[in-house]
Amino acid sequence: MEQINDIQVVPCTNSSYLKPFRVHYSQNGTKKSWDFMRTHDSVSVLIFNTTSHCFVLVKQFRPAVYMCEWERTKPKAPDSDEQAAEEKEGAAMGGGETPQPPGSVGMTYELCAGLVDKADLSLEEIARQEVLEECGYDVPVAKLRRITSYRSGVGVTGAKQTMFYAEVSDENCVGEGGGEPHEGELIEVVKVPLHEAMTFAYDESIPKTMGVIFSFIWFHNNMSPKYKISTNV
Amino acid sequence: MEQINDIQVVPCTNSSYLKPFRVHYSQNGTKKSWDFMRTHDSVSVLIFNTTSHCFVLVKQFRPAVYMCEWERTKPKAPDSDEQAAEEKEGAAMGGGETPQPPGSVGMTYELCAGLVDKADLSLEEIARQEVLEECGYDVPVAKLRRITSYRSGVGVTGAKQTMFYAEVSDENCVGEGGGEPHEGELIEVVKVPLHEAMTFAYDESIPKTMGVIFSFIWFHNNMSPKYKISTNV
Repeated sequence: MEQINDIQVVPCTNSSYLKPFRVHYSQNGTKKSWDFMRTHDSVSVLIFNTTSHCFVLVKQFRPAVYMCEWERTKPKAPDSDEQAAEEKEGAAMGGGETPQPPGSVGMTYELCAGLVDKADLSLEEIARQEVLEECGYDVPVAKLRRITSYRSGVGVTGAKQTMFYAEVSDENCVGEGGGEPHEGELIEVVKVPLHEAMTFAYDESIPKTMGVIFSFIWFHNNMSPKYKISTNV
Repeated sequence: MEQINDIQVVPCTNSSYLKPFRVHYSQNGTKKSWDFMRTHDSVSVLIFNTTSHCFVLVKQFRPAVYMCEWERTKPKAPDSDEQAAEEKEGAAMGGGETPQPPGSVGMTYELCAGLVDKADLSLEEIARQEVLEECGYDVPVAKLRRITSYRSGVGVTGAKQTMFYAEVSDENCVGEGGGEPHEGELIEVVKVPLHEAMTFAYDESIPKTMGVIFSFIWFHNNMSPKYKISTNV
């Protein structure tokens, strides 16, 4: 059980991580502007362990998810007063007006993933590093199969994510994973058995990213001649 | 062809849309902090027109995607100088150091979608409004089928998105769609024929969200007894 305590929320005008920019532009002659943030592209990896016939995911506490769920428990303001209510809520955030939910509401299941922040490494090499650091498997770059790429965001950020598929076996397991503790990562490696994968994917009570759902279904459609997966969805 | 001109980028410390917060907390006794932003939950809708056997998507210019692609064309700095280079880049952003790419690199294909920002409406009612405003189809709430929900973000924001499926016919078409011009929306309604859907989904040269790919595959797996879809992927 994840223990989350001593929560304090403050406005943040000088974040090193979140730096809003404003772009002014003309679109077909109409002047417009948009606030956005720069971010790195990313990679994500669907890992399938052929020894145990399990998918390997990562599970971690996500403060942004936790705060969003806490927010959800607050009484809703009527439509017309939305802006005033938001300002009030903003000021009171974390101020203890509603009871703090358990840490579990911020724990999310995700694909192993990482930012493309090393200019001298290929996407495959970055994916390989993340699989090793987060999940403890040493996979040769040549065994990474590119699934596809897409925009991970289109509003606030516009970065691209590339998804890979990696088949591993227990023999490739060289460590415990868990991320880089000196970077503050506290990552739990979680196995989802193949025969439970589709039920897991569509269970809305399990907080997860769309990447988990999409990749499980991709596997079902593309790897099912090779590995059996339950299809009762 | 989308004409994007007069681009000017400035840092933005008082955005009404992007307001960073910092949360301090203890996780299992370890003190941590995280910068995040609040945002609304959202809905997205896979629309299938049973008259023309086409999916109905929206296409729009996304400044954040455009700026990300422009950034990508800039020369990469060596790893060790990354931070210094980022600061320099930040200052020079939009400063014309590299030629401006065509507007088309910022045009993305997406599911019809919208924010859950009206406290008195259900998710289904908000989805119905978006289908009408963005795509011009009047769909009864009862015809919206919930596909699933997931986290649309886990790092910067932690909001939840719920995805619906809506079957429409030409008879439900009551307008042109295109969004709310007074809110600055310039949305193009795009049809993707069913027999081209899987090729479209995996064509990485077409900028799109993961929601488009996932929902096309969901349709393939769940609606194929009813409608034929090409499976040569």
